[in-house]
Amino acid sequence: MTFSQFRPLDEKILIEYIKSTPALSDKIGNKFDDLKIKEVGDGNLNFVYIVVGSTGSFVVKQALPYVRLIGESWPMSKERAYFESLTLKKHGKLCPEHVPEVYHFDRTMSLTGMRYLEPPHIILRKGLVAGIEYPMLAEHISNYMARTLFHTSLIYRTTTEHKRDVAEYCANVELCRLTEQVVFSDPYRVSQHNRWTSPYLDRDAEAIREDNTLKLEAAELKSMFCERAQALIHGDLHTSSIMVTQDSTQVLDSEFAFVGPMGYDTGAFVGNLILAFYAQDGHANQENDRKKYKEWILKTIEETWVLFYKKFTALWDEHKNGHGEAYLPEIYNNPELQLLVQKKFMTDLLHDTLGFGAAKMIRRIVGVAHVEDFESIADAAKRAKCERQALEMAKLLVKERRKFQSISEVVTAIRQSQ
Amino acid sequence: MTFSQFRPLDEKILIEYIKSTPALSDKIGNKFDDLKIKEVGDGNLNFVYIVVGSTGSFVVKQALPYVRLIGESWPMSKERAYFESLTLKKHGKLCPEHVPEVYHFDRTMSLTGMRYLEPPHIILRKGLVAGIEYPMLAEHISNYMARTLFHTSLIYRTTTEHKRDVAEYCANVELCRLTEQVVFSDPYRVSQHNRWTSPYLDRDAEAIREDNTLKLEAAELKSMFCERAQALIHGDLHTSSIMVTQDSTQVLDSEFAFVGPMGYDTGAFVGNLILAFYAQDGHANQENDRKKYKEWILKTIEETWVLFYKKFTALWDEHKNGHGEAYLPEIYNNPELQLLVQKKFMTDLLHDTLGFGAAKMIRRIVGVAHVEDFESIADAAKRAKCERQALEMAKLLVKERRKFQSISEVVTAIRQSQ
Repeated sequence: MTFSQFRPLDEKILIEYIKSTPALSDKIGNKFDDLKIKEVGDGNLNFVYIVVGSTGSFVVKQALPYVRLIGESWPMSKERAYFESLTLKKHGKLCPEHVPEVYHFDRTMSLTGMRYLEPPHIILRKGLVAGIEYPMLAEHISNYMARTLFHTSLIYRTTTEHKRDVAEYCANVELCRLTEQVVFSDPYRVSQHNRWTSPYLDRDAEAIREDNTLKLEAAELKSMFCERAQALIHGDLHTSSIMVTQDSTQVLDSEFAFVGPMGYDTGAFVGNLILAFYAQDGHANQENDRKKYKEWILKTIEETWVLFYKKFTALWDEHKNGHGEAYLPEIYNNPELQLLVQKKFMTDLLHDTLGFGAAKMIRRIVGVAHVEDFESIADAAKRAKCERQALEMAKLLVKERRKFQSISEVVTAIRQSQ
Repeated sequence: MTFSQFRPLDEKILIEYIKSTPALSDKIGNKFDDLKIKEVGDGNLNFVYIVVGSTGSFVVKQALPYVRLIGESWPMSKERAYFESLTLKKHGKLCPEHVPEVYHFDRTMSLTGMRYLEPPHIILRKGLVAGIEYPMLAEHISNYMARTLFHTSLIYRTTTEHKRDVAEYCANVELCRLTEQVVFSDPYRVSQHNRWTSPYLDRDAEAIREDNTLKLEAAELKSMFCERAQALIHGDLHTSSIMVTQDSTQVLDSEFAFVGPMGYDTGAFVGNLILAFYAQDGHANQENDRKKYKEWILKTIEETWVLFYKKFTALWDEHKNGHGEAYLPEIYNNPELQLLVQKKFMTDLLHDTLGFGAAKMIRRIVGVAHVEDFESIADAAKRAKCERQALEMAKLLVKERRKFQSISEVVTAIRQSQ
């Protein structure tokens, strides 16, 4: 059965769909008697069905034509499913260890069939709330970020290849606009969608709307987000877009992908780890004061950047005589200049990372979509205290980001803020 | 007669073409007996035919599939003609006083029929070589730049409109790559196409290839050129892309247009005026020491920027409650912040202008394509002296551009350099 037009899935339709789609039915050995199906979409935008048979499994994700959290009043192009599957495939080719395989995509139905990340995979954010250490996380995520960002930038590829991606992803404009609104605009104005831990943070939210210096920086970051086609970025790389076990790290949910600034991805990850750090005091109890865990988070932030720096520049060195057009070998192939160029590039990228990361922290505290890190702190006063500390650090990072010369200075500032 | 495939024009084909194209033949009242046709293309890339009848006139421009200066060994997409006519129409709508009207476009033939800029219109560069003052130039060109750049930026328009242009102009990639090569790469490496006033500037050209600081900045400017989709820019706004009389200023040759950094347009104009300034000593003689003319050029540089600043920010103020998405009124509509935001934006743009303008100066002295300003100085030693002064100023502007807070500081530096 093929659908000539979009239909939202339910279990019955899904089973029919699988039966008529060999790429999916083969995965479960065409056996439908013992099929277990479960809808688990806890995001804002999609249905997510887990399909498990006796001989195999997969996930079916369907984009809905509106933001699920808000309802049909906030329409949202289901074409994002196309960009998600396209990006999973592109990033998957560059980094198969950390991107789930796509088995099937149906543009009409906005439907993707992909690898089911079996237990004990959980959403990284849930692990961070639970206080679980992931010893491979920095290693894995730096690998993912270095490989996807490097290979889709002009350091590695030609202008011609690059502009082809830029042009194609321009059509994912609705998702870009959603980010522009909820990350770079709503937190800085009165908006019906904004919320915060009231009344505790009423004055803090107001202060953000009145902070001219902060709003000046927010405008600069927003312009960079809209204008700078630096690499094919994931576009939403927070800790709920990542599933983990002790030895696996998988990046999903790339529906916000477009050719944008690298720092928006690195910043999303780092910023959400900083949020997790400030939430820990809210999760502390008599059995576990979370002090050791907070140090693990800080160590992970530092290691992620240090490893990312190392891997990104190693790829750069490896391909410095390649077909990339940003830094031509006849011009930049002297060791001293190569080092100078890389150092400048990575320092600028650190500043972008801090700026975007901090902007994403702010929006999670006073904007529309909040994070479980804080939401799971039941005591509102305690939650507000954690959130305020995070907010203050985020404001400092946005405003003073250009003063940080290394990630260790950032980690020190975070440690000293408490 | 319509052509089902591309044919390079000659006079006979051109006449047949006009006869079968009402949009053109109507312009000359369908009278072919007294038609005067002249090929005047002195550019590198195109045929340009002037067609004058007793009752009307027009120009026919045809893009050739290679760089004419180099020959068929350097192929160049004739699709650029499409982007040129598209841009003439878009910019013409925004600023009809300074953009010649397009009468007809034929994509198969890469052929544009447009207004003939009748005498005494001459190419601005030729006027600058001849020492002619154009009292309206700063007023007109600032008008053109402010209106085209403002209205095609995110300050004025929505992300959706913006990304549509970004995507379309991505296909003009070959012309962008030509710029990347000849402006941002070739001057900084040994290239068969490079030339300079040898032997006088041999050491100067070598010094540029060995200047790590300069090459670091060139990489940054190149990345901005490739990555930053800020506005629909002309892409080649030097003084040979502009025709002038005492009271008319017309911008043509927009085949390099794409959605890129505004500073590349403002810089092209300013940089080429600075080149004209440094060339004047080579044109001085006993009748005219050109001292007064040099001051007029400096005044024009200053006025251009001051008027551009005024007009661009006036448009911004006028449309601050419009549908532009970069600075939403609910966030930025307080007078103090509005001023702060505009000042930061314009200072950044001044720095981009100086960086791009200076990069374009450098490439005109040690790269493939030189300018009549210097080429018309017959005495090589004298020419080299002028060129060296321009080169030194350009290097300073690229490296130190962020230290200039206003255009008057720049003009002072230029004046003091002599």
